[in-house]
Amino acid sequence: MIIRSLLTDENPFNSSEELKEWILQRNKDVEVRIERIQFSDMKMWHKDPDGSLHHDTGRFFSIQGIDVATDYGNISNWRQPIINQPEVGYLGILTKEIDGILYCLMQAKIEPGNINSVQISPTLQATKSNYSRVHTGKAPRYLEYFVNAKPENIILDQLQSEQGARFLRKRNRNIIIKVTENIELHPDFRWMTLRQIKELMHCDNLVNMDTRTVLSGLKISDYMTPLDSLNGMSKFGKEMLLSSTTNHEYKSTIDHLSWLTNLKSKYDLRTTTCAVNNMPGWNSTDFEIAREDGKYFKIIGVNVTISNREVATWCQPLVQPMQDGLCAFIVKKIDGIYHFLIQAKLECGNFDILELAPTVQCLTGAVGKEAHEKPDFYDYVVNASKEQLIVDALQSEEGGRFYHEQNRNLIVEADESFPLNLPPRFTWMTLSQIYEFLRFNNYLNIQARSLISAIKFV
Amino acid sequence: MIIRSLLTDENPFNSSEELKEWILQRNKDVEVRIERIQFSDMKMWHKDPDGSLHHDTGRFFSIQGIDVATDYGNISNWRQPIINQPEVGYLGILTKEIDGILYCLMQAKIEPGNINSVQISPTLQATKSNYSRVHTGKAPRYLEYFVNAKPENIILDQLQSEQGARFLRKRNRNIIIKVTENIELHPDFRWMTLRQIKELMHCDNLVNMDTRTVLSGLKISDYMTPLDSLNGMSKFGKEMLLSSTTNHEYKSTIDHLSWLTNLKSKYDLRTTTCAVNNMPGWNSTDFEIAREDGKYFKIIGVNVTISNREVATWCQPLVQPMQDGLCAFIVKKIDGIYHFLIQAKLECGNFDILELAPTVQCLTGAVGKEAHEKPDFYDYVVNASKEQLIVDALQSEEGGRFYHEQNRNLIVEADESFPLNLPPRFTWMTLSQIYEFLRFNNYLNIQARSLISAIKFV
Repeated sequence: MIIRSLLTDENPFNSSEELKEWILQRNKDVEVRIERIQFSDMKMWHKDPDGSLHHDTGRFFSIQGIDVATDYGNISNWRQPIINQPEVGYLGILTKEIDGILYCLMQAKIEPGNINSVQISPTLQATKSNYSRVHTGKAPRYLEYFVNAKPENIILDQLQSEQGARFLRKRNRNIIIKVTENIELHPDFRWMTLRQIKELMHCDNLVNMDTRTVLSGLKISDYMTPLDSLNGMSKFGKEMLLSSTTNHEYKSTIDHLSWLTNLKSKYDLRTTTCAVNNMPGWNSTDFEIAREDGKYFKIIGVNVTISNREVATWCQPLVQPMQDGLCAFIVKKIDGIYHFLIQAKLECGNFDILELAPTVQCLTGAVGKEAHEKPDFYDYVVNASKEQLIVDALQSEEGGRFYHEQNRNLIVEADESFPLNLPPRFTWMTLSQIYEFLRFNNYLNIQARSLISAIKFV
Repeated sequence: MIIRSLLTDENPFNSSEELKEWILQRNKDVEVRIERIQFSDMKMWHKDPDGSLHHDTGRFFSIQGIDVATDYGNISNWRQPIINQPEVGYLGILTKEIDGILYCLMQAKIEPGNINSVQISPTLQATKSNYSRVHTGKAPRYLEYFVNAKPENIILDQLQSEQGARFLRKRNRNIIIKVTENIELHPDFRWMTLRQIKELMHCDNLVNMDTRTVLSGLKISDYMTPLDSLNGMSKFGKEMLLSSTTNHEYKSTIDHLSWLTNLKSKYDLRTTTCAVNNMPGWNSTDFEIAREDGKYFKIIGVNVTISNREVATWCQPLVQPMQDGLCAFIVKKIDGIYHFLIQAKLECGNFDILELAPTVQCLTGAVGKEAHEKPDFYDYVVNASKEQLIVDALQSEEGGRFYHEQNRNLIVEADESFPLNLPPRFTWMTLSQIYEFLRFNNYLNIQARSLISAIKFV
């Protein structure tokens, strides 16, 4: 049923064209006004004497300073603002099997920081503050199906990390459930096949980060049965299935575990909170918290007004990137099996020191011109020919926290001459090995998961 | 070669009797004098104004206060002292194959807190402070083999946690390497088969905690080949191999992951440092840091003098338990396959909220008399008949940090009538499923691993 969902775009509810049209129309219908305001003018928010920003209820999230000490990389000590949101939220997709095909109930969701206003999001996207109703608001739609899901209705249920450079050890519960009962279809929701969602993912900024992370955990090959016809699947799709089922690995999982144990033992990462007012290289005013050199990102305060069927307005801080980002996987066939070039990357907010990241993950604006100033493999991916690009799309980060943040997502096929020997923090993994790490907490970072979810099978 | 090591006690180097004799003799030869002293008299240690205890170099470990807030259990907020040792140390066993049998190079190691003085320990037991020579001391014996081990010589290499109630997120690198070169045998070292080590484990307090955690990661069934004869293996041993290779599970791993994700999302654990001088229920004097009600444990300062071939003396704090401990696994055959009754347990120093723990893990002195004051399954394991006890031995905790701490380790076979339905924090796992979690960081706690290592095959 999952394989058929992956191959089917003959959706009796909505054709792919209708879905695209629907999102575009929703984007036209809604007006999102973002007004930069002083932090002191943010209603329901306050600044503590140390410069950190908090919601008056003490919940949702805060912006605080952290002091980072590490022996990884060129800079051993720095301070920066970070989003602290210690609650585990739900990112949930409700699915239903209809005539042997799995349909996902997806939502057209407005987020203030989205570059467009509306993107395709999971059925449920709720922080604990949301669903325990810290607001006076109502419970989020479809919440009850997730809270009451029985083990036999759960397809996937994992704790997964968010951006380690921006969030302090943040994790969400990524969950896919399958229901059999009739589901009331609310106006902002549509049933989609996996193929349709993946096609929308190949357009810029249509499928939000939360959808991508939830779907990344779905190991397609687990659902392949002799009853499934693979007619219509592309050669690349079949080769991805092979990579996801094979035991022919360039390095064993024992080797990878040892490699990662060694790196986690080698590198220290110690973070402590510090005052936002006391971060060298950063200026904290009532208007923004920004670096003196204009690099990386800044914290701004906004007043959000959303005019739709009704008008909603609220204030919040947002993280605004100062530079574009790039996330790229290099893939290469080794003995006939696709392997992914994985990087072990330390980011200051990581739960467990290093996570498995794409081959290249960086802010392009921060990359220097000299070879030694560039991340490993940077030149290779930015100079890849069109024929080498398996995936190439701009993808947004979470619009509830980030303002107009988008990263170029690339999967690049390496040429024959690409070397098998790698620098110490890099390794080759089959898709099967990636999924083995992915099902346990805090191994694959969100940028890697986003790229994994973009793999197309048609 | 590992299977043969598991079945062989015909060690050409040392018979099992000789090994026992050797340890007993070592215990007689050495004199360990532990003298309780004031904290202010501890040479090379000092007390900070907040009451925390630190080594003058700032390294090794410190005793600090933590404030714990959690919605797990009956008490939602408390303060306690904890050992903070943020470095990752080595626990390493060097092995060598001789005539098709794997031999482990084990050490007779003196630790000040041991109930006896000398126990069997891994080849290498070294904190980063040790091996980066914060002391003026020499490098630990055999360190170079571990530092220079090539991937093909590594049998096992995992980061594993220590006691979550006593250590703040402490982890060690558990590593087994296999060498081919000739190894110089230093006086405190002996070659042992796995069978010999396991037999010593069934005596009280002969095999130290570090040995037990390292060996727990070795999934025996991975090394079974058609060339291995299982002659000499017990029926229980063969049934353990079956549990470790089977796919016939009472609950799938997807179910377990979802169960654990749900518990990790449900329970909050927030720890912050606090002053040792400001911990309600605790008294901090210059002589000890202890609870007013005399429960749990206290921190003492000692002067250690070890007289052997030469005399060594130093001061350090130790953790002294006030109550005996009990760690017990219930095992039960479900559809012919042994399953372990696993508990998800929150402890304040855990790296990731909850870890998988034995069925019962508690301080026996802290258990009340009323049914509701007792941990689940407590009565069942303490009232088990002799025939139900597969493992029953006293095992010591790490003598470098704990003073005379021992726990009763039990594996109890459930009777026919034992219920399959369990309370929410409990589940049934095959040994195969346990090993799947064990190879990734921070899933199995050290008490569970200690019991897994005690499984005998002969």
